[in-house]
Amino acid sequence: MRHVLSVLVENKPGVLSRITGLISRRGFNIESLSVGPTENPAQSRVTAIVHADALAYEQITKQLNKLVSVHKITDLTDQGAIERELVLFKVNASPERRNEIVEIANIFRAKIVDVGINSLTIEATGTQDKLEGLEDLFSSYGIIEIVRTGRIAMSRNSKTEAK
Amino acid sequence: MRHVLSVLVENKPGVLSRITGLISRRGFNIESLSVGPTENPAQSRVTAIVHADALAYEQITKQLNKLVSVHKITDLTDQGAIERELVLFKVNASPERRNEIVEIANIFRAKIVDVGINSLTIEATGTQDKLEGLEDLFSSYGIIEIVRTGRIAMSRNSKTEAK
Repeated sequence: MRHVLSVLVENKPGVLSRITGLISRRGFNIESLSVGPTENPAQSRVTAIVHADALAYEQITKQLNKLVSVHKITDLTDQGAIERELVLFKVNASPERRNEIVEIANIFRAKIVDVGINSLTIEATGTQDKLEGLEDLFSSYGIIEIVRTGRIAMSRNSKTEAK
Repeated sequence: MRHVLSVLVENKPGVLSRITGLISRRGFNIESLSVGPTENPAQSRVTAIVHADALAYEQITKQLNKLVSVHKITDLTDQGAIERELVLFKVNASPERRNEIVEIANIFRAKIVDVGINSLTIEATGTQDKLEGLEDLFSSYGIIEIVRTGRIAMSRNSKTEAK
């Protein structure tokens, strides 16, 4: 089963390595991982998406909780959390076809962030489904490069998504 | 000095842990780290921002290059690369003040993704400067939670940024 883990940790060298080590020693691949600062400079937040069965998942969280540098673990899996990811696409774009790609970007509310002689770089955010749809569309033009952040998640205060 | 490293790695358990271990064993804190899939399902891309002097940085990249699972390292530090980050802000918002926050979000081209009785959740992307500016503005309302992806970077094909 897929788990979305949000882990508040101490912001110091070695913490991240201990967490990723702990998860991967158990043989679970981390599908996605993001680390960034939080509202408190002494803490960082790690959002990890891992696939694990119930027993294995329990072991992981138990082990994580034992680490002094782990302050709080929140499982956002079943809470219908807001999940978002940022992707940069560099797409083949001859001057004649540029407008087609710009149109796709507009439909997906994505932004053009760079224009080369034969390429466009597009920034898009959203759920995994939306970003996969966009990737499929850009594929027909030829994708030169994709860079994705890992997914981040936040608990929701309403029952349905605003956008 | 601050370095933006883009590392193409094999997509399998343990690789990420080896990379973060290697960097943090040398005592460098990783300011930001993002891992996500690429256009090739067999590879993941790690974007890491580390602070290191020239000698230490050379050691890190040499050690990384020795790992079989590391396919390619690109240093995007001096290339004026496109750097982007995604942030979710959950901000205190009483019904009377909601419109002020929505207005700030619009100016920064950020999106409202969730509305609670007394809170708004806003999704914003951009450079570090822009996101810090937004954080300052939201601070006066009270920030309940911030979740950030690490920064990602992509080489630029033009000399100036489109947006």
